[in-house]
This record gives sequence, C-alpha cells and structure tokens, in this order.
Amino acid sequence: MISFTCDYNEGVHPDILNKLIETNLEQMPGYGDDRFTVSAIEKIRRATACPEADVFLLVGGTQTNATVIDAVIPHYAAVIAASTGHIAVHESGAVELGGHKVITLPQHDGKMRAEDLKDYMSRFYADASWAHMAHPEMVYLSFPSEYGTIYSRRELEAIRDVCKEYELTLFVDGARLGYGLASPEADLDLPALAQLCDVFYIGGTKVGALCGEAVVFPRGNAPKHMFTIVKQHGALMAKGRLLGIQFDTLFTDDLYMRISHYAIDRAMELQEMFRDKNIPLFIQSPTNQQFPVLTAEQMNKLEGKVAYEVWDRFEDGRAVTRFATSWATPEKNIKELSKIL
Amino acid sequence: MISFTCDYNEGVHPDILNKLIETNLEQMPGYGDDRFTVSAIEKIRRATACPEADVFLLVGGTQTNATVIDAVIPHYAAVIAASTGHIAVHESGAVELGGHKVITLPQHDGKMRAEDLKDYMSRFYADASWAHMAHPEMVYLSFPSEYGTIYSRRELEAIRDVCKEYELTLFVDGARLGYGLASPEADLDLPALAQLCDVFYIGGTKVGALCGEAVVFPRGNAPKHMFTIVKQHGALMAKGRLLGIQFDTLFTDDLYMRISHYAIDRAMELQEMFRDKNIPLFIQSPTNQQFPVLTAEQMNKLEGKVAYEVWDRFEDGRAVTRFATSWATPEKNIKELSKIL
Amino acid sequence: MISFTCDYNEGVHPDILNKLIETNLEQMPGYGDDRFTVSAIEKIRRATACPEADVFLLVGGTQTNATVIDAVIPHYAAVIAASTGHIAVHESGAVELGGHKVITLPQHDGKMRAEDLKDYMSRFYADASWAHMAHPEMVYLSFPSEYGTIYSRRELEAIRDVCKEYELTLFVDGARLGYGLASPEADLDLPALAQLCDVFYIGGTKVGALCGEAVVFPRGNAPKHMFTIVKQHGALMAKGRLLGIQFDTLFTDDLYMRISHYAIDRAMELQEMFRDKNIPLFIQSPTNQQFPVLTAEQMNKLEGKVAYEVWDRFEDGRAVTRFATSWATPEKNIKELSKIL
Amino acid sequence: MISFTCDYNEGVHPDILNKLIETNLEQMPGYGDDRFTVSAIEKIRRATACPEADVFLLVGGTQTNATVIDAVIPHYAAVIAASTGHIAVHESGAVELGGHKVITLPQHDGKMRAEDLKDYMSRFYADASWAHMAHPEMVYLSFPSEYGTIYSRRELEAIRDVCKEYELTLFVDGARLGYGLASPEADLDLPALAQLCDVFYIGGTKVGALCGEAVVFPRGNAPKHMFTIVKQHGALMAKGRLLGIQFDTLFTDDLYMRISHYAIDRAMELQEMFRDKNIPLFIQSPTNQQFPVLTAEQMNKLEGKVAYEVWDRFEDGRAVTRFATSWATPEKNIKELSKIL
Repeated sequence: MISFTCDYNEGVHPDILNKLIETNLEQMPGYGDDRFTVSAIEKIRRATACPEADVFLLVGGTQTNATVIDAVIPHYAAVIAASTGHIAVHESGAVELGGHKVITLPQHDGKMRAEDLKDYMSRFYADASWAHMAHPEMVYLSFPSEYGTIYSRRELEAIRDVCKEYELTLFVDGARLGYGLASPEADLDLPALAQLCDVFYIGGTKVGALCGEAVVFPRGNAPKHMFTIVKQHGALMAKGRLLGIQFDTLFTDDLYMRISHYAIDRAMELQEMFRDKNIPLFIQSPTNQQFPVLTAEQMNKLEGKVAYEVWDRFEDGRAVTRFATSWATPEKNIKELSKIL
Repeated sequence: MISFTCDYNEGVHPDILNKLIETNLEQMPGYGDDRFTVSAIEKIRRATACPEADVFLLVGGTQTNATVIDAVIPHYAAVIAASTGHIAVHESGAVELGGHKVITLPQHDGKMRAEDLKDYMSRFYADASWAHMAHPEMVYLSFPSEYGTIYSRRELEAIRDVCKEYELTLFVDGARLGYGLASPEADLDLPALAQLCDVFYIGGTKVGALCGEAVVFPRGNAPKHMFTIVKQHGALMAKGRLLGIQFDTLFTDDLYMRISHYAIDRAMELQEMFRDKNIPLFIQSPTNQQFPVLTAEQMNKLEGKVAYEVWDRFEDGRAVTRFATSWATPEKNIKELSKIL
Repeated sequence: MISFTCDYNEGVHPDILNKLIETNLEQMPGYGDDRFTVSAIEKIRRATACPEADVFLLVGGTQTNATVIDAVIPHYAAVIAASTGHIAVHESGAVELGGHKVITLPQHDGKMRAEDLKDYMSRFYADASWAHMAHPEMVYLSFPSEYGTIYSRRELEAIRDVCKEYELTLFVDGARLGYGLASPEADLDLPALAQLCDVFYIGGTKVGALCGEAVVFPRGNAPKHMFTIVKQHGALMAKGRLLGIQFDTLFTDDLYMRISHYAIDRAMELQEMFRDKNIPLFIQSPTNQQFPVLTAEQMNKLEGKVAYEVWDRFEDGRAVTRFATSWATPEKNIKELSKIL
Repeated sequence: MISFTCDYNEGVHPDILNKLIETNLEQMPGYGDDRFTVSAIEKIRRATACPEADVFLLVGGTQTNATVIDAVIPHYAAVIAASTGHIAVHESGAVELGGHKVITLPQHDGKMRAEDLKDYMSRFYADASWAHMAHPEMVYLSFPSEYGTIYSRRELEAIRDVCKEYELTLFVDGARLGYGLASPEADLDLPALAQLCDVFYIGGTKVGALCGEAVVFPRGNAPKHMFTIVKQHGALMAKGRLLGIQFDTLFTDDLYMRISHYAIDRAMELQEMFRDKNIPLFIQSPTNQQFPVLTAEQMNKLEGKVAYEVWDRFEDGRAVTRFATSWATPEKNIKELSKIL
C-alpha cells in the first residue's frame, strides 16, 4: 500500500540519519549548548539574512505555537487567527490553556485577509465597551495555510501594515514553511518572510526531520528570558543535539529548500494528474497538500491500495480528500496512483 | 577529554539507533498509532506487571511533570515535594505555570520523609484557616532523588499510607528510574513500584534514549481525556514512531534494566575509587550520580582532562562535585580518572 | 435627565439599605460565617425548592462565571456558549485566562438552540481528529440572554437533554435572573430552573443589590473544595455580611421576585409605548431590556433629556438602542419619555 | 460578648454609611465612571503626593494581590515574599493560579530583610543553572506585615535598592496600611511610601470600608491595559459607586488616617494593659494587632466574654493569641477586658 496520508508519516531524511549515526558516540553538552545547535543557529541566521536573529529550537508545532504566543504577548492578551487556523481548531485549546483567547476571522481558502483584520480592529476600537473585551495583541498566520494555500508578498505586506497600525505582533506558523516557499506561486523567500514578520518558525517535523521547529526572532527581538520560558513550557530538549544535528543538516547545502522543492514537484504532478482525469480540486493549493474531490467509485478503486485522508463527505457519496507529498514521496507512487484511478 | 558531566550528554543506545536506521524508510501513522508505540506500551505493561496500565509516551522530563500534575489534580490543587525536588527547583516554575502551588517539605539526602508528610497534613487540617490555604492533593517524589538516593520499599509504603489517609495522589518522577532500580540498595522492582504509586514515569532521555518519558497509570487510572491533555500541553509528538521505537527497543530483552545495571556498576567503581583515595562523598548515593568533595589540588589535576559538574564551593577551596555515569560510560574512563587523581 | 442606560446605574433597594444601617455596629464573623449569610443560604434553598443545594455568595458577574467554570470543569476542558454569550464577548477573556476555550454556536436572538448544540457535538465526535480539539464539557446559557430573550421550559429541556447525552454540565448565568423569571413569557420559576440545570446563579447586582451573585448547585453538587476555589479566584468577600445581608433581604417576603415584576411591568409599558409610536423593536424582548430602533430625529429629541445605550448605528442614521428598566425605574419616567418622543 | 477577633468583623464607618444613604437614589454610571470614583482617585493622588498616579479601586485583598502581580510581571515570572507573606500562606494559591511561583525568604517578625533578598538574588545569578529556575521579577511586602510589624524607612530603602539592582518590581500590600502608617514607630507617611515602591494598595476593607482596596501606581506606571486586566480578573465592580463613595469618604478630611490613629491608640492601650499584667507579647507589634501569650487560666477567664483568635498552642497550655483593634473598637472594651483578665 502506498500512502499520501500525511507529511509526518515518514522517517528522517537520510543525510540527517547519517549525521546522527556519525556523531552518536560523541559526548555533547545538553540544552542547546552542543556545537551542532550553535552551528544550526548560525546557518539559519545566514539563510534568513538576519545576522541578529534570536533562534530557538523547539520540539513540536503545537508546543511552539503555545510557547511563542505565551512568551510574546502579555498574559491578558488575545491572538487573532483565521477560523481554520491550527491554533483555533487542532491544538486542543493549547493557546487558551496559556490564558489567551483566540479570536477568529473568516478564512478564505484557509487564509486571513488584511481587510477583515483591519475591519475587526477598527470596529473593536469603535466599540464603546472595547476595554471589556479580550485585547488583541498578535496576529497568527500559517504559511502555507492549513488548506495548502500561501500568502503573496503583497498580501503579507498588507497584513503587516494593519499589524503596525494597531500594534499587533505578526507571528507566522511555518510548520510546512519549506513547502510554502518552494511553491511555484511563492513570491517570497526566507529573508523576505523574515523581514515581514516579528517572529516565525521553520518547521522541521514535516520537512525532513523527526521532530523540531526553529523559532526565529529576526531582529534579535526575543523576549529577554526566552530560554527560561521555553524550559517552563516543557519545550526545552535535554539532548539538544537531536535538534541541533537535524537543523544543522537541513541548513547545510540548502537541503531544506532542496527537499521542499522535490515535494512540491511531486505535488504538482499529482495536481496535473487529477486535472487530466477531470477530478475536481476542492481548493487550488500550490503546495504539498492537494484536495481532490473523489467519487465513491474512485474511492473504491483506491481501497486497500492507496492511503489518504478524508476531510469531508458530501451527501452524494463524494468526498473532499487530502493527498500530501513530502521529501520522501517516490515519483513512482504518483504513477502508481494514476494507474489505479 | 573524558566527561562525567551528565547522563544526557550521550547519544542514543546503538540498538535503538539500529532500529531507527532499519525502519527509517517505512511510512507509519503519527501521534502514537504506529506499531512500535503499540508494541512498546504492551511491553511496558508486561515489565510493570500491570496488564491494565494506561501508558503515554511524552518527550521530556519537565514537560512530563507539568503535564501529569496538571492532568491528575484539579486546577486549584497543590502538590507536595521535597525542597530539593526537581519541580520545586529546576523546572523554571513549570508546575506553577499550570496553576499549581508546589509546597515543599524538608529534604533528607534529597528524599521526603513519611513523618514530615504526615506532620504537614495533620497540621494543615488542624489549622482553622486551612480552607484559605492551597489545598494539597498530590505528592511528588523522584526515584532516584536529585541527590542520587533511593527510597526503600518500606519508606515508599509509609508515604503511600499517608497519601491514602489524606487522599493524595502519589506521583513518582522516574527520570533516572532504571539507575534507581538497578542500585545494589534497591529492594524494589518495576512491578513493586507500580503497585505503590498512582502514576509514575520511566525515564528514557537519561537511560539510553535520545528523548522520551513513558508515563504509566498502573491500574488503567489515567484521566479520561489524557490524549487531549497531552496534546494541549505540547507533549504529543507528531512522529510518535521516534518515541515508540525507542521504548520498544528499551523494553525488548530487558535492555532498559541491562544498561541501567551497567551504569550502576561503573558508578560503584567510581565510588570505590573515591573511597580508596580517601576522597569524601558528600552524599552516600547508591545510584549513577556520585558526589565527591574534591580539593582545589584535585580539581587542578582534572583540569582539561576530565569534565564534571561543580555543585557547591566551600570557602576553603574544596567543592562538592557530581560525577555521573550512564549506559555509555566506558570502563576505561574510570581507570583513566583514577590515574589522574 | 432621566436614564434608561443600564440596570446597574442604581443604588441599592431601600430594604437592604435599612438592614445595612440597622446592623452596622454589630460585629460579625467574616468570610460568610455571619448569621445573615447562613440565613440567606437557607432562604435560597427554600426559594429554589432545593433543600440540599450548595450556595455560595460571590461578588460580581464576570468573576462568578470565571470561577464557576474553572471550578466545575477540568483545566483542559472547553465551554460552549452562544456567539453573543457574555463570556464569549464582554468578559475580557476571563474564561480563557482560566485556561478554557469558549466554543461559540450561532445565536438566535441571543439564544443557543438545542439543535445547534446537538449538531456541534455529533459532528465533534464524528471528526476523526476530535481528540486534537478542545474538549467541550460545559454549556453556558444566560437567562435572560444578552438580548433580553428567555428560554422556554421546552427549550431548556431540549438543551438539558443534549447535555445529558454528551456529558456536558449545564450552567445558567442569571445575572438578570429575576427579570427573566418575572417576564410574562416565562413558563419557568426558580424551582423549575434549578431542576433543569447543574449550576446557576441568581444575580443580585442588577436586581436590587449593590453587588453579589448567589451561585446555586441545586443537588448539593458543588466541587468538594469550592470555598477554597472561590477564595483562590479572589471572589471571597472578607466582610461576607455585605453579601449575606443583601441576599437575606432579597429573599425575605419574596422581595427578589416582587422587584423583578415591578421592573418588567415598566419594561412592558416601554414596549407598548414604542409600539404605539410605531417605533420598531430590533428584538422582541420580553424582559427588562428593550431595543427600539430610533431615527436620528427621535434621538435628537432625547438629547440631554433621556440617557440610553446605542448598540449599533445604521448608515441611514437610525440606531439600535437599549432602554433598560429596573426595580428603581419610576413610573413617571416612562410617561416623561413618551412625552418627549 | 466583646470581640477583638479581627478588623474585618465590623460594619462600615458611619460617614461612609451616611454617604451611601444620601446618594442611594441617584443614578450613576458603572465601572468606575461615577463622580465619586473620579473624586476618590483625585484625593488619593493628593494624599500620596503623586499627581500622576494611576489608581484603580478593586474589591478585596487576595484579588488585588493576584491581579496586580499578574498584571505587572510577565506570565513566566516569579515573585519573592517573606515565608509568612499573605500571598505565600493564606491566599489558597491565588498567585500560582495566575502562573507565578512564590519564592519565599526567611521572615523576621513577619518581615523580609534586604540582606536576605540580596543574598538570594546574588546566589541566583551565581548558580550556573539559573535559567532553569523560576525567574524572580517582583518583591512582595506587606505593610504592616502579617505579624503587625512595620518596615522603617531605612529598611524599605534598602529593599528598594536591591530591587533596583536586580530589576525587581517592588509591590507593597497595604491591606492594613492605615494602621501601619499611624503606628508610633512609623517613620513613613503615604507620600514617602509611594516614592519607595512601584505599586502598592491602600486597604479599605480592614480600615473603615465594607470592601475595597485602592491600587496606586505612583508614577503613572500602570500597565497599558490595566482596566481590561482588572475586568478579566473578575475584580471590576459593576456598581463602582460602592467603591468610589467609600474611598472618596475615607480620603475626605483625612478620615482614613484619623480612624487609623484611633485604632492604634486602642492597640497601644491594649499593649500597655498586657504589660501591666505581665502578660508577655509574642511579637512586639506597633500596630493594631497584638499577640499576647495567654495562660490556660487567663483564657478560661475570657471564655464566653471576650472573643479573640488563637494562633498557636504550646504544650504547657499557653497560647499565642491575637487581639485586633480597629476604627470601631470602643474604648470601654479595653477597660472591660482589663477587668476580666
């Protein structure tokens, strides 16, 4: 059986595995003081063109979102997200556990619009009782979004401008960042993204690593005691080498972007194949997640041969499904899928 | 340079590394649904003789303590620990971040005494204003303690009895559990420990793994929505296979206890060597951490050749130091150290 | 200038004031041990026909909502409210500060519908990733709602049934409870309400008192250490006599319902007057808040003579306004308003 | 029976009661926008000689401590208190509920010493693992302390200096502030205290009011959204007039200090009387709480005639007791007590 179920069903990229093997018997200090973490941070500074950046290597996505939000905004403050935002839907209330309300705006193919944000903020302060309402101090975006779509430079600039106007910190969740930046539609690279936001993270778990998310404060703007905050949120790995080695390898010889491009190439092949077969796409996703609407008959054909996720079922038997590619998707799997369909 | 600095300065046990290599190209479901996690849980149930146990694989120690405490006791409740307890000192206030006061009792070589606990609880309820005080509902112990000492069966039974009398949940932090159970002084094994407490965890990070702590609710007594609680606390690993493979290997052919015994053998050699050289031990630790009091002269000899931790400095130039062994400490390192001293 | 701005712009009912004067020089124990609090609790038990009820006197509405929710559901759990629910909009994120997500359902004239609730819960458990979502364990209703509407017995029973099916605690915010029960449309009384929900509170602040909300757990079902929880949430009044005297008076000779009926009589006069003048009502509210849609011309007439709240402005210059009556609204004020309009 | 049990067993000062009566039928805006609150704030600014002060009127002491601490320091930060500090002992863990560890230092007659604080902070940063420990960012003092003692100007300056050195906010809990400042031993007045700390509160509940604590940020240094924070913590009173009228009256014609002096005069009479009768005082308290050590025989004499608190019992039958005076203690009660003893 071949699987397009998710981009975290894979192991680790072989280059990383080799480095783990090679260094396994070496003793290294813990908590991020190992030489690989130090080197990874330096390489991330270069890749983002942010020589002053503060970089922290955390373990997982929900943890990173909860920790960053709680670190950056005051305890009383709220964060604004699209209604489909990961923090609003699929993190079990982790952000609220930290005390912060998640205010949701309408989503458009998984994205927040600058106009909606501006509208919310201007109505907020126009409301005589705004001081009785949760006070928004951060905007959370995911790039790519949960629906695989990405923000254009212009869209991000517009959101950034509203953030500046209303003193909102702009935080970008990059759990699948590589797949977003490698998209043929992307008009942004890592340095451009870093310029546009106040804090973001470079997802490792879904892009070649076993675990790990690299949080970047581009202008050295991390909260003063960020290390303590990370530790307090249970996000500090004792054997920091595991994260250091992974990110050091991912940011050596541009591996992170190379494998991201590979995954996107496979996704575009998938997309083309669905189009060729007149299978409609629920969302026009330019990244590694594709959302074909399959008929019951088509799903029957795949039964026991191809794995994927079902997102929603229509009454007529059709379903919105998700097919994800990754750095590890063999080219032949797409051909195989094509034959079966 | 040889290092006795800490038991988390090592890589991963070769058996685990081999299994990671072997399975790397396999696709597996995330979030603990992979076959290795399923198998690891089954093996832990057998090793603890708790066929009904609920087992959860989390990532790190502070995270596990904060998550378990917040999961098991109500939001308003407090937890009692020895004043040297890890949650009281070295977790950056992670337990308090979850809303829970940590009440401290005197430590005796790192351990809590049943009498002190009973005394605290009886005074608590004798105080007319007890309802105005933080309400203790859990006892936190570490086995071994932060000073390397361990509880005897009788000591644990006595604490357990006080817990029952005052309706306190007994939680054992086993970050170094293997090293505690493998101690020549231990009169407990895993099944006995599991009988005595309400929840405990089997530390992986310091005992052969890269990361991972296995939380065990021995009598199937996990809170109803523990999976959601783990996720909400940022402690759910997307690629659960990393934890599953590690614990499955550690609990295959008794690897966990075998490598723990190996580390303890090295620690006993260290202890004997210090005694032979008339180097006093600050605490009589029967586990993998040894605390020799070194003179300035001795420390000079070690300079640049042997790494270790300094815990406290006396005015006369002597210092309490910590030497830790692990599953990875070569026998020759102890001989080498002996020569240098 | 006469004012219909809000029902908390008044002082305290004269009967309460007299009792405060009468008892002022008496010494009484604090924290709710005074004889008036004891008596008030007994009277509330009788008025609700719940002889086993646990009753706690807290100070204000937001505080009461946050305390009750945090006391009753576990730290990880979420609460479901209508999108216009007070906890969802006008409590500055107090519930989230306690760690709990507020999930919102569509509002219908300020009310939640049982069908929407059932639909949400059945979709929730049908979602394969429900364990990754905030887990709902409570339903929050306000009676009357923020729009002045009330639930019929049948509507409440339907919601109660869904709650039972999905193990949701039913909590009713009764900040204006008297005005709801005194409505000509109400088919419920205090004992009936108490039967239908798991916990509710009888609002004092807006119904005759200076402050104070009486939380009722009808079947003696308060959390075990509720007193400590109340104290910990800063909701325990040292001079509990202030709350005791107020509720004891309000529940003597049916004062609470008598003054509620008085306010409703005035509100019905208002409603009739608006209808007579062909002033449309934005919502058909059967309680003490009325929502006439006024023209710019009408608002000009009121300028400097009558105070009220503006809720929303239309582009054509008209506005949705709120006129609130209370136990203290003089009959002549309505006549005066009628003349001005 | 006459009572010296506590200073919150009284009603409200007659001047306040009269003002409540006088204004009861007036309509006033809520949430602190009434003219009395506005006036009270202005008078407090004058009384503290802080024309720029931000002043907020909250309801009770535990609430005020929890709200101020959570408002002023970041979510991750800890607060340092004497081991007998109210927040450390008698607030049910309210500060921890907000996420903040309370670090305790030794108490000396209920007070913290600057040397101990400096020692703690210098050891903290000397510890190699300080970043793994809860990060202290505030010092909490009570004036007078829980044992009735007060800080001299020199003592407070010394603590203030350590706070400046280590970037700690200095917060003074003034639940009984009037009684402290009116003490014959006090060498501070309100303006001097305001100069020395970053935030403090003027206790109303125990000094003439029914409820109410006035939080003062002397240099306009309140957090930006303090109103929202107060609301979110359930500490905003809807009928703010109740607080406004009380503090406006207390700060009219120096009432607050006049009644405080009255209470201290009574306390000094008590003290003298105990000395005359050779009854030892457990602590030399210069304020309204006196702590005579009574014999079993003496307590028998008081049985049924005089009420007081027992703090601790010795094995020989003697007990440390507390006798509190207040603005409402009749002079004759002391004479009566003297006769009985």
